[in-house]
Order: sequence, then structure tokens, then C-alpha cells
Amino acid sequence: MDSDVENSGRFSTDVYADRLRAAQEATAAAGLAGLIITPGYDLRYLLGSRAQTFERLTALVLPAAGAPTIVVPRMELAALRESAVPDLGLAVRDWVDGDDPYALVADTLGGLGVATAVTDSMPALHLLPLADVLGVVPVLATDVLRRLRMVKDAAEIDALRKAGAAIDRVHARVPEFLVPGRTEADVAADIAEAIVAEGHSEVAFIIVGSGPNGADPHHECSDRELLEGDVVVVDIGGPYEPGYNSDSTRTYSIGEPAEDVARRYAVLERAQRAAVAAVRPGVTAEQVDAAARHVLAAEGLADVFVHRTGHGIGLSVHEEPYIVAGNDLPLEVGMVFSVEPGIYFSGEWGARIEDIVVVTEDGALSMNDRPHELVVVPVRR
Amino acid sequence: MDSDVENSGRFSTDVYADRLRAAQEATAAAGLAGLIITPGYDLRYLLGSRAQTFERLTALVLPAAGAPTIVVPRMELAALRESAVPDLGLAVRDWVDGDDPYALVADTLGGLGVATAVTDSMPALHLLPLADVLGVVPVLATDVLRRLRMVKDAAEIDALRKAGAAIDRVHARVPEFLVPGRTEADVAADIAEAIVAEGHSEVAFIIVGSGPNGADPHHECSDRELLEGDVVVVDIGGPYEPGYNSDSTRTYSIGEPAEDVARRYAVLERAQRAAVAAVRPGVTAEQVDAAARHVLAAEGLADVFVHRTGHGIGLSVHEEPYIVAGNDLPLEVGMVFSVEPGIYFSGEWGARIEDIVVVTEDGALSMNDRPHELVVVPVRR
Repeated sequence: MDSDVENSGRFSTDVYADRLRAAQEATAAAGLAGLIITPGYDLRYLLGSRAQTFERLTALVLPAAGAPTIVVPRMELAALRESAVPDLGLAVRDWVDGDDPYALVADTLGGLGVATAVTDSMPALHLLPLADVLGVVPVLATDVLRRLRMVKDAAEIDALRKAGAAIDRVHARVPEFLVPGRTEADVAADIAEAIVAEGHSEVAFIIVGSGPNGADPHHECSDRELLEGDVVVVDIGGPYEPGYNSDSTRTYSIGEPAEDVARRYAVLERAQRAAVAAVRPGVTAEQVDAAARHVLAAEGLADVFVHRTGHGIGLSVHEEPYIVAGNDLPLEVGMVFSVEPGIYFSGEWGARIEDIVVVTEDGALSMNDRPHELVVVPVRR
Repeated sequence: MDSDVENSGRFSTDVYADRLRAAQEATAAAGLAGLIITPGYDLRYLLGSRAQTFERLTALVLPAAGAPTIVVPRMELAALRESAVPDLGLAVRDWVDGDDPYALVADTLGGLGVATAVTDSMPALHLLPLADVLGVVPVLATDVLRRLRMVKDAAEIDALRKAGAAIDRVHARVPEFLVPGRTEADVAADIAEAIVAEGHSEVAFIIVGSGPNGADPHHECSDRELLEGDVVVVDIGGPYEPGYNSDSTRTYSIGEPAEDVARRYAVLERAQRAAVAAVRPGVTAEQVDAAARHVLAAEGLADVFVHRTGHGIGLSVHEEPYIVAGNDLPLEVGMVFSVEPGIYFSGEWGARIEDIVVVTEDGALSMNDRPHELVVVPVRR
């Protein structure tokens, strides 16, 4: 057991106290009266709560100033015990069927007509009656919470580092799964077991793209049987307690690759390295994207790199910052994202290299350390 | 393979064509210009789509009259192939990063300022920009789709019947799992395996409440070891292709029950039977609830029945109609819901009996047929 992760699968209480304080400051700075946060990643971020209620309203009501309150169905009170709510001493206003929980939220915020922001995952089921009772349509809390969610604290970086080490151990085992005659689905089943065996709490996603399937970046897996000579893209990840995700891609060759594959793969390797090397505080997200794109373009491979270079990662697998053209966000120390250029030759093969990196004063620090080369798997039967 | 369930894990295309037509009629009758349905149970109901996109807008735009359109990110087009969209010949408007998908929805509906309804699961992330572009805050589609979702067609009832038979086979195996010294979690692991082995596509929930834990209707499972003499509540279910859920509770006694337990359990059995007997078209949901409550009250057990008598079930485990005091909805042929009174003695034990029933012209038809008696499990070691 790590000192900073308690039995309950969350960080220590002071982490959440700091986050609530920072969220209140950002709310005040945005000129809003408060935030209304229903279950989802924002609630998990702010309170360590994994509540997943849908029909009955559970909501953190965080005023710009003053004490936060949690509004919760009485029958869900017990579930709060696992979150930081009891240790934080948060005010709890519970309600039972027949009460109006939306009026309770409005009352907690001190009245009607107040400008509020809501979490992006709040369902229409709650948002529309809330807007009705408040008399004002809320705005998205995304802007208020963006910087807070993007810049990871020490506890989060530690969790992401452990997730990265766990997925590295899975990649180390992938060659033994890649045997000609087995299907992509067979391989994915082995990987699923390994992801959990190596310490993740569950599987988030598994892509096994062999031969022509590797040329589709959105392929997951199929009943295609592996062949000698296949290039295989393996992109895998999952959450590691208390819920921070891994995400790493390596590309494998069953038997020695064709000369042409090896040559183009070497360009991809340079492109990925260039993007990582471009990372430092003050550089923009799009500059990192451009660094990878530039290397590929110089070798005539611009058109086969069909997606953005990366995405932020944390409690969710895809979050801000997005490393993409048009995003002029300057990187800050503590931001964590993937760097994953790929090249895709329709009907033939594809390749991708992906590491998760954290921005430090000295540039990118990688959460993954498996070699970047095309992994040549000896042909077994 | 059943004739009415295709390989793709959905019903045949005419089922969805009928549903879309009925939804359009209900939309027109409600005086709305159209429905906007993002991924979730409503989309699965209307199109057989299991899409789960979050950040990028996928939406069925269903005008009150005229052709339905699906708005979808170009990178998600392939996923639509599994739904009924291609066979229905639905218009598809795809978009790429940089486009404004909300303007596309507004344009599809024929302009701005139109009254629309949105699915209850639509996240604020999409609802707020949609309301902005439309110039009118939408209302919930729940009212429009309620009757359609509640009244199951023949294909749905068949799926629910198969789900019921599958969970019955699991309950038939539960006694072999209930051995003193094993934990509730051990038993739950065996049940999880059996739920899938008996034909469900996955596990939805498992409650194993032994001894005092059975007195908490929201208990899931724990490391408590089973003891001789325990009363054990086992409430389990999961989805069966194409996604309709089972949900059944039986109560077990490890060794012969105390006389007091047997006597009170017999009252519960009568209460459950009375509620099922009360079901027929035209009777209200609350009258079914009252039927169970009345039997318990007559024996002084009113206060220990602390929850509603039941909930609708289909693609989701909890949906309308809710069998609860205050719900004066008249039952109709084709409605499907649980009948599950329970009695709970804090710190001591609890019991619950739950079947899923469908309303027919002749009253309730049960989807479950395991005996209702307290199941006495011989003590093994």
C-alpha cells in the first residue's frame, strides 16, 4: 500500500481539499456563483467519488465562496463513505423520493437566477430541470476546470508512472502471443489477461491491427489470422488504482520486415522522437504536433499520418490537452499526454509508436520505457 | 441463431423501422418539430446502435415528419454498419474536426427556433451548444418515448423470456456455491461465471447478502464468511443478446431456518403472490405496490418493506414503469417489470423474492419459474 493511496482507492484527503479550493478560486475568477458537478470524471477528480447514479440526482454544489455541499439521495449516503466527503467534513443535504432535489441545489446556491457551470457529463435528465429551477441555463464547467484537470499534481503523476510501468510489462509479453495462425481476437484475449495480471484494475481498450488491419487507426480486433510477415499494431491500456490510465502502442513484425517497411518505420521512429524532443514548458500543443509531422513530410509521408499526434490522459483516457494543429495552448509543467504519430498504408500495413509523457522543466519525461524499434518476433508455430 | 436476432446483435430491420415511425407519430402528437437522440438506450432502442461516443457528437435527428438523419463523425462511420442505419437507408451527414456538428443538426431540422426534445442521457457537453445554436432550450424526450419504451413488442418479450430462463438456470446452481466458510465474494465470483456460462453476454449486477448483510437492500457483496444458519439474499442479472436484461432474486437458508424466519418468509411469499395476482391491464402501478404492502401490513411487517415493489426492465435494468406508491399509470399489455417485495430486519437478516412479469390480457406472465420457497441448502463443508 502506498502512503498516498488509501485503501479506498483514492488519494489522501488533503489532495481533494486542495482541488476543491483551486476549483473555487477558478469559479470566482470566471465570475460564476458556483459549480454543479454530477457523477463523472470531474466528481471523481474533486472528491474521489466513483458514484455512478443516473436517475436520482447526486451533485456536488461548489459555491465560488463558502462551504461546498453534496446533495445526495438518502439511499446513496452509504456510497459516499468511500469518497473524501466524510473526511472533508462536507455539508450533506440528502433527499428522498418525492422531494425536489433541483430546488435543493438552487437553495444551496443561495437562490435563483445565479450563473452556474455544470460538469460536461451531466445528463439532460438533470440539466433541464436544473435550468428550469435556476431560471438561467448553466454554462459548461470545462473552462473553469480545464487547467486544474490538465496540470497533474505529484500524486497523479505517480499514479500515471505506475500505470505506464504496468503497460510496459504487458508489451514485454506481447511477442509470445503473436504466433501465426492465431487470430487477432486470440491475441487480444491474452493481452486482456496480462493487463489485469500486471496490476491494472481493468482493461480500457485493446487494438490488435495485423497486416492490412493495421492501416485502420480505429480497428480494434477481428478474427483475422496472423501470418508470417505481418506488421502488427498493438495499442493497449487500462486504469491503475486510483483510476489513472495507461496507453501505449508498439508495432511488431512477425519475422523480419520487408526492406520498405523497415525504412519507413525508421522515419516514424524519428518523427516520434522529434515530437517528444519538442516538448517543454511554453511550447504550444500544435508545435509538438508539427514536429512529428515535419519529419514525416520531409520523407513524403505527410499524407499517411492521418490523425492528431496525441491527447491528454489521466482519469479518462482522452482528455485535454489535445496535441493537434490549431491548439495554441502553451504546455505547462505537469501536463501529461500521449505522443503517438502513425503511418497507414491502406490495404497493406500500418505502424504507430506511442508513449505517455509528462512536461517537466527539462522537457518531456516518459512514463513508458520499452524500446521504440519495430519489434521483430521470431516465427513460431 | 434466432430468426429475429441477426448476427449483429440486434433485431431485424423492420423492428427499427416500426419504432422510428411510432416515435415520429409521438413527436408530432407532442407538438414538437423533432427529437435529437445521442448514444444511449434510446438510440439503441430506435436504431440498434451501441455507439458510445462522448466527445464527438453522434445524433439521430428524427423530425416529426420526413426522413430521419444521422449526424456522425466521419471516423465513426464504420461503427454504424452494425446498427440498422444502412438497412434502413437513413440519410447520413458526417462531419470532421473543425466542422460545427450542432449547426448541422439545426440545419437538418430545417432551421432555428424549433421546439425539440432530447434523449435523457444527452450530456451537457452537447446539450448546451445545441441549445445555443437552436436558440431554444430543448425539453426531455422521455415523455415522447415513454409509452413506446414501456410497452414491449413481441421480439423484446422473447428476448426478456430468454434472459429470464438463463437467470433461472443460474439460480438452480446457486445452492452448490453456498458453503459455510466461503465468503460472499467467493460466491459472487462463481455466480459471475455462471451468468455468462448460462448465456448472458455479461454480468450486470450481483448481490449476495448473507446474515445481517441481507438486511441492507443495497448491499452488494463483502468478505463476510457464510455461516451455518445464514439466510442469504441472492439478486442477480445481466443482459442477454440483443441486450435485454434478466433480474431475479431468491432467498436461501444454509441449513433449516429458525421457526421465526420461516413464518415471516411465508408472509413475504404471500405478498409477492398477491402483487403478481393484482397485475392486469388497467390496474395502476401503485395498486400492484399496494397489493404487496397490504399483505405485509396485515402481519405487522409494513415497516420492514422499505423499498418500492418493482421497476420496469428492458435494455436498461431500471426503467419505467416504476411499481411504486404515487404512480397512477394504468398498466398495459406488453409492459414488463419486476415484482420484488422484501423484508429487512436490521442486524439480523433479510429476504426478497423477485420475478420479472409481462402484462397480458389474462394478467401477469412470469419470465422466471424457479420455486418461490425459501431454498434450504444442506450444510456441506
